[in-house]
Amino acid sequence: MKYGIAIFPSKEVQDIANSYRKRYDPHYSLIPPHVTLKEAFEADDDYIQELIGELRLIASETKPFPLIIKKISSFSPVTNTVYLKVEPVEELMELNEKLHQGKFTKERTYAYVPHITIGQKLSDDEHSDVYGSLRMQSFDIEEQVDRFQLLYQLENGAWTVYETFKFGGVK
Amino acid sequence: MKYGIAIFPSKEVQDIANSYRKRYDPHYSLIPPHVTLKEAFEADDDYIQELIGELRLIASETKPFPLIIKKISSFSPVTNTVYLKVEPVEELMELNEKLHQGKFTKERTYAYVPHITIGQKLSDDEHSDVYGSLRMQSFDIEEQVDRFQLLYQLENGAWTVYETFKFGGVK
Repeated sequence: MKYGIAIFPSKEVQDIANSYRKRYDPHYSLIPPHVTLKEAFEADDDYIQELIGELRLIASETKPFPLIIKKISSFSPVTNTVYLKVEPVEELMELNEKLHQGKFTKERTYAYVPHITIGQKLSDDEHSDVYGSLRMQSFDIEEQVDRFQLLYQLENGAWTVYETFKFGGVK
Repeated sequence: MKYGIAIFPSKEVQDIANSYRKRYDPHYSLIPPHVTLKEAFEADDDYIQELIGELRLIASETKPFPLIIKKISSFSPVTNTVYLKVEPVEELMELNEKLHQGKFTKERTYAYVPHITIGQKLSDDEHSDVYGSLRMQSFDIEEQVDRFQLLYQLENGAWTVYETFKFGGVK
């Protein structure tokens, strides 16, 4: 089964992201707006149970940290993906690192750039139009992250949450 | 903000449900296949924190129970909703009852009939066709339920999981 690990921002930030995703992201209906912590990976039942123990430990060692968004950026020319840029605060980068060490799969497609995708699989022309009109926008978003979620993927490509992991000391 | 409480069945059962929902359920893209435990209700930040404490307590008192599906049924003529009928085992009915007592809102639209919706908002003719062809199907599904989820609704109608509550004694 395919699993992934993500942070869901607040409803407010998800609503902002969806206002763009509705038009520009073909994955709009497969998963709510999110910050990917670990890309899709394969795990059988035994392996995922082992990882769940690790996830609980990692969560307990993590302190709540700020999710800061100031602007929209793009992965072009690598891919025509437009995103809300999430500031790479130390705690977030460390958390990502821990999910690619030890018992976890270590493969990465790219170096970690935390983001919330708002448009993808755009043609070059669409990308120019969309990013051209959004790149000047600025945001002043800062909220607390206090949990992450383990999800699995259904046959139709949609994701279901399997479990929530709250950070240490969070009620 | 609007919250709801649901059980997500296994990937296997969700994939079966989605094979019907894709064609017959306009809510297909808003939430994965689920058993609703408590319909959408309003809660502010303080109230939901209070309820989360209750949910933790209720989960700790609940033992894993079987999710049993044998057939497809319909709420017609009340609504043209077709569903996988979930057997009303005692533990499930008790859990539902606890979520409509004490600090929880008590309003119910209908008496509780546990189900996984696979088609809704069908015209009378569509309903006759769909239910007519599905009512003779039988299933032999039995799996363990060991958790439920608290979700909130985004402005576009989609649902995001806020927290998982595992039953007592479940690792």
